[in-house]
Amino acid sequence: MKESIEVSGIPLENPAGNVFEPNCPSRVLLDHVTSRWGVLVLVALSNGTMRWGEVRRWVKGITEKMLAHTLRTLEADGLVLRVAHPEVPPRVDYSLTDRGQELVALLLPLVGWVTANAEATPVESPV
Amino acid sequence: MKESIEVSGIPLENPAGNVFEPNCPSRVLLDHVTSRWGVLVLVALSNGTMRWGEVRRWVKGITEKMLAHTLRTLEADGLVLRVAHPEVPPRVDYSLTDRGQELVALLLPLVGWVTANAEATPVESPV
Repeated sequence: MKESIEVSGIPLENPAGNVFEPNCPSRVLLDHVTSRWGVLVLVALSNGTMRWGEVRRWVKGITEKMLAHTLRTLEADGLVLRVAHPEVPPRVDYSLTDRGQELVALLLPLVGWVTANAEATPVESPV
Repeated sequence: MKESIEVSGIPLENPAGNVFEPNCPSRVLLDHVTSRWGVLVLVALSNGTMRWGEVRRWVKGITEKMLAHTLRTLEADGLVLRVAHPEVPPRVDYSLTDRGQELVALLLPLVGWVTANAEATPVESPV
């Protein structure tokens, strides 16, 4: 019998299982959308369509390799749309899909809270 | 001159900087509250006070070492309260602080969305 998981009235399960189970697909998506770089790239793109270099300027400190990986993962998740224009020199635009917009609307209050509350936080965890 | 960062009307900066800057304390807190285990432990504890073993049963697949690390980090962030009762055998309770409750209220809609949307996601990113 399947366990029904609901926390504070929000259902935390889907037909494949729930987010607390190691093999549930929601765990994979959770990892993607809650990775530091994933969050920052999604929030940056909520400002509108950007080229590669613009995303990189927003998300300070991200390496080219990690930016490529993050954009590819978010594209595969259906959160980011990649449009390559047939121009010379080539131009590639990145933007949020409708699904990405939906997600960012939930991420923004979280990132705002973190920003407002960060100062009370020690930079390093105690040993 | 400090850059002012605001996305969709939500301020994303504090006196120490903003979340897009590598050395801002908000990046550190963002990493803690958006780590997979951090999210799952916080959401589990939103059900109420739990002992170590109860948290571990909720967050399936977490190792003892990672659970210890996650709880210690969240405690240092002021999100989780650890109370050791002077009993034999020793009893240690974990619960959310007011700050932790505040954060979980923002995390739950996100985790709910992820759960509802996970099925459309491929389990592995394309090569």
